[in-house]
Amino acid sequence: MSKHLVETRWKGGMQFESTNPGGNLMIDAGPENGGLGAGYRPKMLMLSALAGCSGLDIAHLIPKMKLSVRDFSIDTEGILSESEPQTYTAVTLYYRFYGEALDQKKLQRAVDLSVEKYCGVLEMFRSFATVNIVTEFHP
Amino acid sequence: MSKHLVETRWKGGMQFESTNPGGNLMIDAGPENGGLGAGYRPKMLMLSALAGCSGLDIAHLIPKMKLSVRDFSIDTEGILSESEPQTYTAVTLYYRFYGEALDQKKLQRAVDLSVEKYCGVLEMFRSFATVNIVTEFHP
Repeated sequence: MSKHLVETRWKGGMQFESTNPGGNLMIDAGPENGGLGAGYRPKMLMLSALAGCSGLDIAHLIPKMKLSVRDFSIDTEGILSESEPQTYTAVTLYYRFYGEALDQKKLQRAVDLSVEKYCGVLEMFRSFATVNIVTEFHP
Repeated sequence: MSKHLVETRWKGGMQFESTNPGGNLMIDAGPENGGLGAGYRPKMLMLSALAGCSGLDIAHLIPKMKLSVRDFSIDTEGILSESEPQTYTAVTLYYRFYGEALDQKKLQRAVDLSVEKYCGVLEMFRSFATVNIVTEFHP
């Protein structure tokens, strides 16, 4: 049985310090919510986790599938519920590939593999949100 | 309609840079997965988001309910599925309060308010994982 442990400690005010193998990170509310803005907003960290999880899949597949990509980005847009507690009810992932020799068919296959098979964070998002996928190629 | 946009851009290798109102953050795989470990692991960011979201509720309630707390932490333990894609199937939140004059009844009420009413990230987790709550007081 595999498990992850994250420790999150109050630093006073609205600030927290949280552990991660990549280094500790700060969390804080914005000034509009009584914080100093000196840390990440928790809910949006979930969108970074989503893009990062799928991005790692794609970054792994690019050399494996011998693809030529100059740059790529994954923008994530989350729609919040009207009612409290606020949750993401829909999320759109925009996969944007840039380069002179983009193999669009194979890149779409890489996106599909992440979306349908590999990305655990996306699988979790599907439990509470409608997930939309947009793939763009910019030669 | 309220929405959140996060931009995540490939930095080469397994590294990504993601936006947040609190500042940009780096994401990377560990060396065991072909990365340099120079960034946060995405899945564990979800546990930081969970603890941070609930922590902000508690940090907001402590002065509002006139509670005396020297320190507190929220440790989050996520159990991963055996099957791929790996998702969190269960998560336990350990709320630990430290101080000489802890009003245990009111602190438990603050935890309950976050867990049952305020915390949107916890509400999302409930869609895919069993959520367990443990509250500890350390006078």
